[in-house]
Amino acid sequence: MLEIERKHASFSDTVHYRDPPKLVSRHEGSYVYDKDGTAYLGLPMRYWAASFGYGNERLNNALHHQIDTLPQLACQYLHVEKVQLAAAIGRLNESKFGVTGRVHFNVGGSQAVEDSLKLVRNETGKTLMFAFMGGYHGRTLGASAITSSYRYRRRYGHFGDRAHFVPFPYCFRCPWGKKRESCELYCVDQFAKNFDTEYNSFWDAKAGEAEFAAFYVEAIQGTGGYVVPPPGYFEKLKAILDERKILMVDDEIQMGFYRAGKFWAIENFNVTPDIIVFGKALTNGLNGLSGIWARDELITPEKFPPGSTHSTFSSNTLGTAVALELMRMTEEIDYEKITREKGAYFLERIRDLQRRYPKIIGDTDGMGMALRMEICQADGFTPDKDLCDAIFAEGIKGDLDVRGKKMGLVLDVGGYYKNVFTLAPAFDITNEEIDLSIEMFEMLFKRCAPDRV
Amino acid sequence: MLEIERKHASFSDTVHYRDPPKLVSRHEGSYVYDKDGTAYLGLPMRYWAASFGYGNERLNNALHHQIDTLPQLACQYLHVEKVQLAAAIGRLNESKFGVTGRVHFNVGGSQAVEDSLKLVRNETGKTLMFAFMGGYHGRTLGASAITSSYRYRRRYGHFGDRAHFVPFPYCFRCPWGKKRESCELYCVDQFAKNFDTEYNSFWDAKAGEAEFAAFYVEAIQGTGGYVVPPPGYFEKLKAILDERKILMVDDEIQMGFYRAGKFWAIENFNVTPDIIVFGKALTNGLNGLSGIWARDELITPEKFPPGSTHSTFSSNTLGTAVALELMRMTEEIDYEKITREKGAYFLERIRDLQRRYPKIIGDTDGMGMALRMEICQADGFTPDKDLCDAIFAEGIKGDLDVRGKKMGLVLDVGGYYKNVFTLAPAFDITNEEIDLSIEMFEMLFKRCAPDRV
Amino acid sequence: MLEIERKHASFSDTVHYRDPPKLVSRHEGSYVYDKDGTAYLGLPMRYWAASFGYGNERLNNALHHQIDTLPQLACQYLHVEKVQLAAAIGRLNESKFGVTGRVHFNVGGSQAVEDSLKLVRNETGKTLMFAFMGGYHGRTLGASAITSSYRYRRRYGHFGDRAHFVPFPYCFRCPWGKKRESCELYCVDQFAKNFDTEYNSFWDAKAGEAEFAAFYVEAIQGTGGYVVPPPGYFEKLKAILDERKILMVDDEIQMGFYRAGKFWAIENFNVTPDIIVFGKALTNGLNGLSGIWARDELITPEKFPPGSTHSTFSSNTLGTAVALELMRMTEEIDYEKITREKGAYFLERIRDLQRRYPKIIGDTDGMGMALRMEICQADGFTPDKDLCDAIFAEGIKGDLDVRGKKMGLVLDVGGYYKNVFTLAPAFDITNEEIDLSIEMFEMLFKRCAPDRV
Amino acid sequence: MLEIERKHASFSDTVHYRDPPKLVSRHEGSYVYDKDGTAYLGLPMRYWAASFGYGNERLNNALHHQIDTLPQLACQYLHVEKVQLAAAIGRLNESKFGVTGRVHFNVGGSQAVEDSLKLVRNETGKTLMFAFMGGYHGRTLGASAITSSYRYRRRYGHFGDRAHFVPFPYCFRCPWGKKRESCELYCVDQFAKNFDTEYNSFWDAKAGEAEFAAFYVEAIQGTGGYVVPPPGYFEKLKAILDERKILMVDDEIQMGFYRAGKFWAIENFNVTPDIIVFGKALTNGLNGLSGIWARDELITPEKFPPGSTHSTFSSNTLGTAVALELMRMTEEIDYEKITREKGAYFLERIRDLQRRYPKIIGDTDGMGMALRMEICQADGFTPDKDLCDAIFAEGIKGDLDVRGKKMGLVLDVGGYYKNVFTLAPAFDITNEEIDLSIEMFEMLFKRCAPDRV
Repeated sequence: MLEIERKHASFSDTVHYRDPPKLVSRHEGSYVYDKDGTAYLGLPMRYWAASFGYGNERLNNALHHQIDTLPQLACQYLHVEKVQLAAAIGRLNESKFGVTGRVHFNVGGSQAVEDSLKLVRNETGKTLMFAFMGGYHGRTLGASAITSSYRYRRRYGHFGDRAHFVPFPYCFRCPWGKKRESCELYCVDQFAKNFDTEYNSFWDAKAGEAEFAAFYVEAIQGTGGYVVPPPGYFEKLKAILDERKILMVDDEIQMGFYRAGKFWAIENFNVTPDIIVFGKALTNGLNGLSGIWARDELITPEKFPPGSTHSTFSSNTLGTAVALELMRMTEEIDYEKITREKGAYFLERIRDLQRRYPKIIGDTDGMGMALRMEICQADGFTPDKDLCDAIFAEGIKGDLDVRGKKMGLVLDVGGYYKNVFTLAPAFDITNEEIDLSIEMFEMLFKRCAPDRV
Repeated sequence: MLEIERKHASFSDTVHYRDPPKLVSRHEGSYVYDKDGTAYLGLPMRYWAASFGYGNERLNNALHHQIDTLPQLACQYLHVEKVQLAAAIGRLNESKFGVTGRVHFNVGGSQAVEDSLKLVRNETGKTLMFAFMGGYHGRTLGASAITSSYRYRRRYGHFGDRAHFVPFPYCFRCPWGKKRESCELYCVDQFAKNFDTEYNSFWDAKAGEAEFAAFYVEAIQGTGGYVVPPPGYFEKLKAILDERKILMVDDEIQMGFYRAGKFWAIENFNVTPDIIVFGKALTNGLNGLSGIWARDELITPEKFPPGSTHSTFSSNTLGTAVALELMRMTEEIDYEKITREKGAYFLERIRDLQRRYPKIIGDTDGMGMALRMEICQADGFTPDKDLCDAIFAEGIKGDLDVRGKKMGLVLDVGGYYKNVFTLAPAFDITNEEIDLSIEMFEMLFKRCAPDRV
Repeated sequence: MLEIERKHASFSDTVHYRDPPKLVSRHEGSYVYDKDGTAYLGLPMRYWAASFGYGNERLNNALHHQIDTLPQLACQYLHVEKVQLAAAIGRLNESKFGVTGRVHFNVGGSQAVEDSLKLVRNETGKTLMFAFMGGYHGRTLGASAITSSYRYRRRYGHFGDRAHFVPFPYCFRCPWGKKRESCELYCVDQFAKNFDTEYNSFWDAKAGEAEFAAFYVEAIQGTGGYVVPPPGYFEKLKAILDERKILMVDDEIQMGFYRAGKFWAIENFNVTPDIIVFGKALTNGLNGLSGIWARDELITPEKFPPGSTHSTFSSNTLGTAVALELMRMTEEIDYEKITREKGAYFLERIRDLQRRYPKIIGDTDGMGMALRMEICQADGFTPDKDLCDAIFAEGIKGDLDVRGKKMGLVLDVGGYYKNVFTLAPAFDITNEEIDLSIEMFEMLFKRCAPDRV
Repeated sequence: MLEIERKHASFSDTVHYRDPPKLVSRHEGSYVYDKDGTAYLGLPMRYWAASFGYGNERLNNALHHQIDTLPQLACQYLHVEKVQLAAAIGRLNESKFGVTGRVHFNVGGSQAVEDSLKLVRNETGKTLMFAFMGGYHGRTLGASAITSSYRYRRRYGHFGDRAHFVPFPYCFRCPWGKKRESCELYCVDQFAKNFDTEYNSFWDAKAGEAEFAAFYVEAIQGTGGYVVPPPGYFEKLKAILDERKILMVDDEIQMGFYRAGKFWAIENFNVTPDIIVFGKALTNGLNGLSGIWARDELITPEKFPPGSTHSTFSSNTLGTAVALELMRMTEEIDYEKITREKGAYFLERIRDLQRRYPKIIGDTDGMGMALRMEICQADGFTPDKDLCDAIFAEGIKGDLDVRGKKMGLVLDVGGYYKNVFTLAPAFDITNEEIDLSIEMFEMLFKRCAPDRV
């Protein structure tokens, strides 16, 4: 099979980051199984899409059911689930933010990001955006332009709408060497300075107009390493943006749907974004359905009329049916409580790990069930990418002896220095499974860094 | 339901092209049903995605089955269906074109187009493309730049990589007033002239280098109105492009998978494209899975290495499972024969219609099961968009009295003047159903243009 | 001297098109002299800048005088000559076109073109332009984007505002193979077709808006080979542009100031451009002064306020003093008569040459004192660049035996195929000098193509 | 005259920054005279172009002489002065920096900047640049893209090659609140951090390649307010750029030719730029001649061949003759000594002023004869633009009673907050004239801020 793959498949996606790639056959709950039946406890849950657990029965059933009724429809016609899903999200946001808005669907996170760019360009007549260093918004050309890594642009020619990237408040490694206790959000002040005079390049004081249309944010950086910003940061930032008539676009593709303890991660920070982009967990990973919500003023039928954007699979019936069921689950089940509690338990366990392995773990942090563990050298600060890679590779081997059974641990590596384990367990993970993962971490530490345990 | 929609849904997709939108509840074979159970015979088959029929049992079952085994997987791991699907397409192209290549998957046609743009930019170091007037390649910012309609760019600011659009060989309305019988492919010669001297703006004769990287083509234009190019056109075009080292990217999103009587529409024209983009019918519309195939030289692991592009839902397990089953069907069933024969029958029937309604139909044409019927004024040439719209609107009312039953006819309008019915019936449509559609066309002609029948 | 040059000077300007370069010491009237005192009759007159003759006493004196009074001034202050010059041009255009306008100065033709681009962008909010194949507007990045030759862009990365280049009505080599007598301006119709439907890529019919802001034209192409468009062409083109709200920018840098028999070349064609760009002959080549004139509505102090553009040498006192004197000369002397008469005489002489050397000259044409002679192969049509180059090279050798004296002939080669001598003699050339040039042409023909005379 | 101006002249240059504009008739040495003969002592010397004094006899004579010999020449031919001037600059740079290079000429500073952009793009294949906040490089579209003020871009659509602007080390108002004594060049470290990881957006660590091609610097900011960077800054910056293979382009248009006490301002800072751009004072403001010098590797005839760039007035004979004479003057006269000494005297005098008027002057600084005086509120720090404007306006009135005569003081206002007098006196200003200017400053302070003197 690997030989066939090697001959016919492009290597351009992420399969070959690891060589040879891992073949997976089945999954359930928090586990994936290889063809030999070995179980791997998954902490990333498929790039953060399967928050509600692999093989979630209720959602899978919704999908089965929709196949048997209306498995597809040209998006020029209407089906009930689309309407109900849009309404569910609209009402939820109205209750949370006190503002009305509208929902537009698409397929794939990048395309939703592209739709948000169209919305911003349409509203402002401008094409330049702010975005965060460490931010990730997708891999279409437009989304790559606002994603920080130059690596994603390097071989693809000129990006005329490359964002201006602003340091994210990554306090463990504050770019200005400040301490969170005493910094008084120095970082936001540094951003605000950009508008002091026209010579700072962003602001025409005579016209009272900014050159940049919107600021794309992830409330908690995903690929950037699950970095949690300090309290007050976003409030202060939004005030500056409002004053300069710069929109805030909140990319919740990774963190939305309770990953960070609230329906939207941004809710943790007391600001109302102008546009929200979402995807991934919207269908628990069962369908590429994605979407945007925008404040009404930006997306009225007059301003953003029929035909403003479109895609064949945009409001597809299978995806909307699953998403609608998922929205119902969130109305019935208190996921805020679940994610806060399980997240707190998991955070406590990794903080304990940090205390016990100070020569391996430099930082732990988390919000809801988005947790980070930064692998550092013995000084507890210098990033140790090599060790991080080793732990990842050993974890995925599937040969950890866990209570008499061979198991593996599936991890995801992120962060600016690629030395952060970003932990995004399924919401139905049990405390026992959390404990199990901690056990496996310890085994991996011992195996990979025997001299630092 | 429509009221809720009106409040919470963005109008920006195509639902509100018709107001109020049509609510659909169920579909099967070639029919969709509204909530009252009225049947509508569908000729477009969901923007050309459901070529293999609504509710195709074999494909739906493949989807059901995959949900119960491995409904998703992070695309950094591998699953069998992905490999087999890539291999099936790779082998098929090798057999057809005699060149080896590789397949990369994504989700949504636009994202596959964006991937192809990355591939082209990576190979050539250039960012400018040729594309056809009347061509459609998607609605992300990058895809909009190579899609002809300015309407899709107008409110979205500057497009620094806007394509140079070349007239498509639309012989019924030849831009140069030539006749197909005697033109000797004047249109290709006009394109070739662009490289005569450096003053034509495209060619640096001293360096022997073109300013443009690739030519994006649809072998048969989709949205442009199912325009079939004259024999020899693409062969001659490809020779010019090869001479100038300009790649040809063949967008088969609408026409691929036998719509035009061959697996790829381009096969009808004896050229081997450098890159093929596909989607839609790949899963019979059940999943947003899309992809590109490229000649090996362009997409070697060295040139287009891991991480070159990526998306969460790219090679998703549900989509690849359905697509793999579909590929198996194409190996077992002679769709070439089916589409050629049924297409021929349908074409004959609409040609007969044209003979009988010369004051309504100006042109009919078709290749495989991609057929066109151009609605014109009494002179048989001047486009009659109003009549076309009226026929569309009456057809979708669902009140045609067909052999004692109320029925509707779902049509799709395309073409430069929005006066073309683009007919893309399901491959399992019966001759009786074709006859039925002809009957309904006649009813609609009589209802909408009583003085011209 | 040449050795020093070879070591310290960049080769990037046009000096090294010919190697070794020619050293010039002095010039006067229509002649330049090398260090040995050999005279060369100049037909191009320094890239068309010195129309009023080398060493024009009156203009040189104006320059001498200004040096002794106010040789410079920061352009934030005002000097009399600037005001009078602006007024002279403004009044002239009012009398010619019946519309009021304003004048803005800069230095170098390209910078004036850049200013015109700013004016167009400011007015329309759009960044895309039409321009002609064969058109030349300068070599800054912005001007290169609307200049047809890809050679001027090739090594300089992405040009996001590359113009869409339209074939110029070059009737001797009509791109569509039409004959001027019977074509009925087919070429303009071909341009007009671009706005037929949104699928032609330039026009949003729903919004009634074009994607392109302006059309940059040279009324007679300069570098393109002194191609004179057919009567009616520009009138018809302007009507189409007006209908689509696309501005016409008339680049008179090469043809302005009577080169084509009228003050502005465009006056020959009965249209009023929205913007005129000028330079070169404005100071008879004594100063880089350039400028734009625009219809009042485009350039009101409100729309194009102080600080909209600027350059240190923009309205420099030396340049404006010379230009003002030149404007006075044009008021006192009937240059229209002079250029029409001398041009007619010269054209008659080269037409006679063509009759006598049909195997060398394929086409001759001219308007005012802008004349062309196209060197072709024996068939009278196939461009013969080699012969053209040979004639040029022999002419500049300075060894023609003319009535007992060694002389040279300075020619300029232009045209799409680099086979056109573009003749732009000084306005004070005598008929005897014209005859002399004809004699030298004959000698050169005999020397370079003995078998075709 | 003003009425005529108001009717025919565009207001778009800087004349109307002050309304009504000042009419100037004559100038000499450091003085300009209005039509009534009132003298104004000029401290800016025509946007820094006339460093060698108004009406400099030697240079004016060189200009007169050239008019009478060869006042112009098509730049495809060669004249002696061009060669000698290129050689003079080339040799000077070789002696100063120990590297060989080549010189290319153009006209107007912006066009030289555009040429440098072409050179950078040609070398690197990249289009994005770093530049300084507060930096000014011209007003063509390309130059505006790397000039910090958004005001210069706002109404002109998309700038796809907008620079990334980096804070200049403006220590009096350190963006990070550091003190020069203890900062250890924190600012350079902040810049260096941009290359720490790929997530900082500028660096692809895997490929070892930066997204940005060059850093455009003014060694001392001109328009930005004559800000002198701290010792060591540029050395440290250059090291970082070299390490990342990012070129340094040194814009000496304002500061070159001894303004800052050395031939090139950058010489004060011990770094060798890769490209130098120059203009303005090159001809003492008598001609728009400008140019670039580049390290040989960047500008070999192979890499930057004939035709790479061009402009009619590029190496014009009048400009090169004056510039050559000016180069001779700099070889004969010790301008380094002159500018250092007079600059020191002037700086001492304004520092004394600052001591005596601490409630008006917040900062004084200078290098060579580029001096700054920052007008602040009584706290000595808050910028006081209003007072600065008032002093400027009163100075230019021409009614100061100076030793029994009515006089005026011409000032130039710059700086981020438009509260800095940027003083650029003529090199032949006398100490008495310096004293005179100080006297006038005091009168103006008393007149404009009686309560703060």
